[in-house]
Amino acid sequence: MAKNVLIAVIGAGGVGKCFLGQLSALAARRPSPTLSLCYICTSKKAVFNADYSAIDISSAPSALATSAASPKALPSLIEYLAAAPAPVVLVDNTSSQDVADAYPLFLAKGINIVTPNKKAFSGSYDLWQAIFSAAAASGAKVYHESSVGAGLPVISTLKDLVDTGDKVTKIEGVFSGTMSFLFNSFAPTAAGAAAGKWSAEVKNAKALGYTEPDPRDDLNGLDVARKLTILARLAGLPVASPTAFPVQSLIPAALESCASGDEFLEKLPEFDGDMEKTKAEAEAEGKVVRFVGSIDVASQQVKVGLEKFDRSHPIAALKGSDNIISFYTERYGSNPLIIQGAGAGGEVTAMGVTGDLIKVISQL
Amino acid sequence: MAKNVLIAVIGAGGVGKCFLGQLSALAARRPSPTLSLCYICTSKKAVFNADYSAIDISSAPSALATSAASPKALPSLIEYLAAAPAPVVLVDNTSSQDVADAYPLFLAKGINIVTPNKKAFSGSYDLWQAIFSAAAASGAKVYHESSVGAGLPVISTLKDLVDTGDKVTKIEGVFSGTMSFLFNSFAPTAAGAAAGKWSAEVKNAKALGYTEPDPRDDLNGLDVARKLTILARLAGLPVASPTAFPVQSLIPAALESCASGDEFLEKLPEFDGDMEKTKAEAEAEGKVVRFVGSIDVASQQVKVGLEKFDRSHPIAALKGSDNIISFYTERYGSNPLIIQGAGAGGEVTAMGVTGDLIKVISQL
Repeated sequence: MAKNVLIAVIGAGGVGKCFLGQLSALAARRPSPTLSLCYICTSKKAVFNADYSAIDISSAPSALATSAASPKALPSLIEYLAAAPAPVVLVDNTSSQDVADAYPLFLAKGINIVTPNKKAFSGSYDLWQAIFSAAAASGAKVYHESSVGAGLPVISTLKDLVDTGDKVTKIEGVFSGTMSFLFNSFAPTAAGAAAGKWSAEVKNAKALGYTEPDPRDDLNGLDVARKLTILARLAGLPVASPTAFPVQSLIPAALESCASGDEFLEKLPEFDGDMEKTKAEAEAEGKVVRFVGSIDVASQQVKVGLEKFDRSHPIAALKGSDNIISFYTERYGSNPLIIQGAGAGGEVTAMGVTGDLIKVISQL
Repeated sequence: MAKNVLIAVIGAGGVGKCFLGQLSALAARRPSPTLSLCYICTSKKAVFNADYSAIDISSAPSALATSAASPKALPSLIEYLAAAPAPVVLVDNTSSQDVADAYPLFLAKGINIVTPNKKAFSGSYDLWQAIFSAAAASGAKVYHESSVGAGLPVISTLKDLVDTGDKVTKIEGVFSGTMSFLFNSFAPTAAGAAAGKWSAEVKNAKALGYTEPDPRDDLNGLDVARKLTILARLAGLPVASPTAFPVQSLIPAALESCASGDEFLEKLPEFDGDMEKTKAEAEAEGKVVRFVGSIDVASQQVKVGLEKFDRSHPIAALKGSDNIISFYTERYGSNPLIIQGAGAGGEVTAMGVTGDLIKVISQL
């Protein structure tokens, strides 16, 4: 194993700050190899030393705040890291498409990557191929557990199934904490449980911090479609993009063009009747409605949208903002392998990143 | 990464045969590193070449059947493998205490180990410490995913939680496929579902192959206690042995001394009243009874036995012979991280072993 590993971090937002906390504790706990932070940046500022000497991890956020240095442009960051005197792991804690697009260049230079950034793995299939070809050619590692289900062992489990020769036949689940919270509140399984109108539940979820600043960024289904794209590709389907399969948007067509999230929320009550109808239809069958994604590997069908489930189904019985992912495989037969738990949040997302970092380091 | 890795296999029973099938496919699928089977044995026979040249994996079972060679004694096996010209992974597909007791000697010589054998990790705490000290000193790896929950990602998830700095507060679940099947049949969640007397369910489970040849080997709770011992130790509790905490046996005291499993099954109906009473008590509270294990990390309490659960609880809602393991941690808060699925069976157990082998190889 390498004696010293250099860590370069892009992004110091919600996940980034949690990751730095975990990295600091990890470095203190594990004497070998030495983990040195050699570079950290936000979109505006950066901290680094030309000689790659270690930046104190715990004071990195405050050092960033007072730094006068701008972040290196991606080509010079690649050059800087490629010339480092020890193995390097780039930790991309952004959701930037620009950074994701540069992954093949980092990997080609032997720079390892760990990231929760979905963009790299759910964009064009060309980018997906470029990333994994570059990694295979140079031997650099690229791990992205937190790109689906945050710290839940979703990607690693799917890879283990595939790598050990199992045949995944179907993947199904609730992949969005926001959608989970919304439907667990709007259509609770307990008969007679109180539930507000759809628009009120969306407003409430936003107030509690469960949605993006503009809730349409959750309701359009794209976040779920991106996660499905990643899992489908890992299961062997060459999905072209997250818009290459049916994705049901929960934004009423008339509200697509609202100028702001606030305007959207104001007008959403006018459409409560539609969701009440969907809910009532499910109830008439003794079921509840949930927003799910599914991948049928044999028929190569991927889809995202509303479906009805028996009240006793594990998908119906979810709580809070939990995710649930069921893997149906040849070996597991009719009862799937199920992973369930919080699929969003700074600490659990950072945990997936830190876990990946540990796995990459063990191979350097 | 190493260019060639030597594999030595002990055991060619149910799990062992499935593992050989998976290894054969893996070796064919992955050109690098080359995976060479250099040694394979049962308790009676062995196949190996003095010069470590590769044994054909797919014909190994038939080669074993016709081999005239006896297995090497453990000290000479260690000597043979320690002198190998490439990194070695020992795959122990037995449940032998003798082999487990020799792990520290293998590891001290730099021989890596992957295994589903619970004995090594759930025996005395001295053996546990000797194993991990030897591995730390030599750098050899020891992986044992399938020692709990077969191929389910239980051990790897717990290690990730601990390694990334989360605090595990409680682990709870159904850890035995046999117990799961028995109680899902005997006390089904669906109100009014048909269920036989306890002794009839035990007989039925045996007829379907869900129990050991003598069902008392499942009903004594020791298998679950061994799994709990492993998880508790990984969570940081220095549990002395699987008999160092309360384990409820479902064998009536009067039947402990039956000469055979058949005699036990014949006399078990005399005690059906006890289990009916336990079941009725749970039903009076609107609950069902299940055989679970739990680890409370803060209070250092480990226990195995019958508990009552609401019908809507995930433990009550299990199906077939599935396992379920809930990790309560500081990061995951009140909703645990849950892993669920088949926790027994040749192919899924072998899958955990093959997955571990892949992870060890990536570090050689």
